[in-house]
Amino acid sequence: MEQRVIDTVRRVFELNGFIGIETRAVEEGASLLKKGETSKEIYLLSRLQEVGHESDTPLEDRLGLHFDLTVPLSRYVVEHSGDIAFPFKRWQIQKVWRGERPQEGRFREFVQADIDVVGNGVLPEHYEVELPLVMVRALEALRPFGLPKATVHANNRKLSEGFYRGLGLDDIEGVLREIDKLDKIGPDAVAQLLMDTCGADERQSRACLALADLSAANGEELQVKFDALCERYEIAHDGEAYMLARQGLDTLTMIIDEAARIRPGSVIADLKIARGLDYYTGSVYETFLEGVQSLGSICSGGRYDNLATQGGKRYPGVGLSIGLSRLVSYMLHTAGAEASRVSPAAVMVAVWDEADRAQSNTIANVLRERGISADVSPNAAKLGKQIHYASRLGIPYVWFPAQAVDDAGESGGDEVKNIVTGDQRAADCKSWEPDTVYARQTIGLKAE
Amino acid sequence: MEQRVIDTVRRVFELNGFIGIETRAVEEGASLLKKGETSKEIYLLSRLQEVGHESDTPLEDRLGLHFDLTVPLSRYVVEHSGDIAFPFKRWQIQKVWRGERPQEGRFREFVQADIDVVGNGVLPEHYEVELPLVMVRALEALRPFGLPKATVHANNRKLSEGFYRGLGLDDIEGVLREIDKLDKIGPDAVAQLLMDTCGADERQSRACLALADLSAANGEELQVKFDALCERYEIAHDGEAYMLARQGLDTLTMIIDEAARIRPGSVIADLKIARGLDYYTGSVYETFLEGVQSLGSICSGGRYDNLATQGGKRYPGVGLSIGLSRLVSYMLHTAGAEASRVSPAAVMVAVWDEADRAQSNTIANVLRERGISADVSPNAAKLGKQIHYASRLGIPYVWFPAQAVDDAGESGGDEVKNIVTGDQRAADCKSWEPDTVYARQTIGLKAE
Repeated sequence: MEQRVIDTVRRVFELNGFIGIETRAVEEGASLLKKGETSKEIYLLSRLQEVGHESDTPLEDRLGLHFDLTVPLSRYVVEHSGDIAFPFKRWQIQKVWRGERPQEGRFREFVQADIDVVGNGVLPEHYEVELPLVMVRALEALRPFGLPKATVHANNRKLSEGFYRGLGLDDIEGVLREIDKLDKIGPDAVAQLLMDTCGADERQSRACLALADLSAANGEELQVKFDALCERYEIAHDGEAYMLARQGLDTLTMIIDEAARIRPGSVIADLKIARGLDYYTGSVYETFLEGVQSLGSICSGGRYDNLATQGGKRYPGVGLSIGLSRLVSYMLHTAGAEASRVSPAAVMVAVWDEADRAQSNTIANVLRERGISADVSPNAAKLGKQIHYASRLGIPYVWFPAQAVDDAGESGGDEVKNIVTGDQRAADCKSWEPDTVYARQTIGLKAE
Repeated sequence: MEQRVIDTVRRVFELNGFIGIETRAVEEGASLLKKGETSKEIYLLSRLQEVGHESDTPLEDRLGLHFDLTVPLSRYVVEHSGDIAFPFKRWQIQKVWRGERPQEGRFREFVQADIDVVGNGVLPEHYEVELPLVMVRALEALRPFGLPKATVHANNRKLSEGFYRGLGLDDIEGVLREIDKLDKIGPDAVAQLLMDTCGADERQSRACLALADLSAANGEELQVKFDALCERYEIAHDGEAYMLARQGLDTLTMIIDEAARIRPGSVIADLKIARGLDYYTGSVYETFLEGVQSLGSICSGGRYDNLATQGGKRYPGVGLSIGLSRLVSYMLHTAGAEASRVSPAAVMVAVWDEADRAQSNTIANVLRERGISADVSPNAAKLGKQIHYASRLGIPYVWFPAQAVDDAGESGGDEVKNIVTGDQRAADCKSWEPDTVYARQTIGLKAE
């Protein structure tokens, strides 16, 4: 069902020079458990022969299914660091598994499409605008399947952290965690949580909300508004906290100005984007579809300065990930894409009589050699039945092989009928081409 | 690593009108355990939260990873029988998992490429020659990657069973199991096993080996030789056993004669092909690579009259499966295909100075819009370093954006250099095309 969507996204990744990798689904417990995520929705494996003795093996030594594509990338980079030309731009589209109780609308198994660029020691900042733009292009390429316009909302961890520290707050992770709830529970409840759980007073809490509320059309406006906010909350320009915030602000300014130059409206600054995960160290991104609140972010990511470490080496990265299954599910159920699976064949060759099947096969093979996907009728049923079979498979053309001698004793040539329009005409399998509009493989998803 | 191989095989399947499906990796224990296979190399899953309590859940209610693509197909057909237009021709290329102790050269996780056609109640015999021929075409399409010529060896369960019963043997499964060992342990050891474990006397045992030894260049020769064998071992033409054998013989005759007409030498009769699995009911196939004994069969399958049942309904099928991971592993390690991963980009645009990156990005984007995969240098390092990076990624062209003003004060146009041949010339990103030989994405596998 997702094949054409996967193909489309992958095509954009490859046009942009990303290298495809595929990693095994099975990772060691030690890799899966070391990541900062506390939810630990992991499926562990046990061989049938081990049933009843699973617990004899420590968790770290057991095997489990990967729950994202970042853990495998981290392992891959360390294992292949000698062979990789850094910076390493990779795409990866694979299933991931979450060991959660299955609920309505939540999958135990789903497909993610990730791009990351990983540096050896250093990683230039320009990737922090290039990667979200590649995702914007990938999502644009899905619009013919019924996807609304997508906009990347960007923020920066350093900006937030610097500002919070400038206010005198220390529990940065806590503040980010509460700010992340803004869309769900609203500003009043978040303000209360900041005071109850993060040690903020009312003024600090108000300041955090004011920062989250800050939006700007361009880099200059962003900088002016941010500085005004710092002045209002007495965060001095020469303090360490402001310096840190300034680093983040400059990166975010670069991102939105550069993105506006290349694709206006595709990436905006949104200072309430927090991201739950603690391994992001700079830019963070979430992506929303126009008019679709319910889905939440469909493509998220950020910069992490320690994707992997090996001895004294550090591999910083920037990456984003599309939850493809959820997107396809939305397209099918809400955006009105068609779910019925159809044949990739552009034409089905009819069979007049089982004794003539070889003739039909020969025609089909000539078409295939020419790159035209062709099927042959399963049986020599009445023509109406054969056409009905093609129609159920969504095959637009039916080919009628020449009958050596027709009822009137005349020999006729091959003909092909477009069963959508009813148009029927003489055709030669060595030269015939389907009309492009009918040749296109729709494969279950609405095309335009 | 396998992506181009997967793409190639899939292309052949789709040209032949097979419909792609994808099923979840996770099936219920009840489905996984009901299949006749006794080895049961299954990975069961448990959620991290369940560790220590796994055994509270009966095996049938637990989840496990599929170990082939036939069990999921069977479930899929039953679940979607109302929507499917039968006969249902489907391709499926996915990972499967075997819960076996990992050993040298054996994977816990590998990719299979399957085609099957499934009928509702009935399934015409012509598919029994068409499906192996599609696999022959798929394997032919892999020859540019270094794969030797493949030949499908076909046999028929009814033929074997009828002959064994005609000899007075009853333990048909037992005889097939021992005959299956011929290539491994040789005829003497098999003869001994037939006598020790299948209740055969010396004459019956010799007859079984004589049948396994029977080969023929065409259907007529096959029939003559088989009848001669029946005469020698006094199997009467009017007995039930012979009738059964005759059914299989006729199907096998049709297969090799029809295949010889379309692709001479692609499918041969080989009466020692037994296949270990007990669910085959007619044709069985194994496929061998010319000059490669060690790999064994690389593509196997057969006809099963009960792929799935639902109430009173029966869904017979014919299918073959390529073990793609093993094949790719062979191509890389033995057939001399190159393993180094390279970029899909045909060209890398150089960057003279970080301030000029926007110019390089614009050129790359124009190329991408035209369908040419393009990368941009990660940094404005010395030109030699940039070219070295492109070279490590296997990118054949480096693009030099016009320098507004060169050292002599002259303004110049864009140029592009083929870093393989050294050829450098003026180029316009709106019209330039890479030479096809360099534009082709080799992606790790030797192309011719």
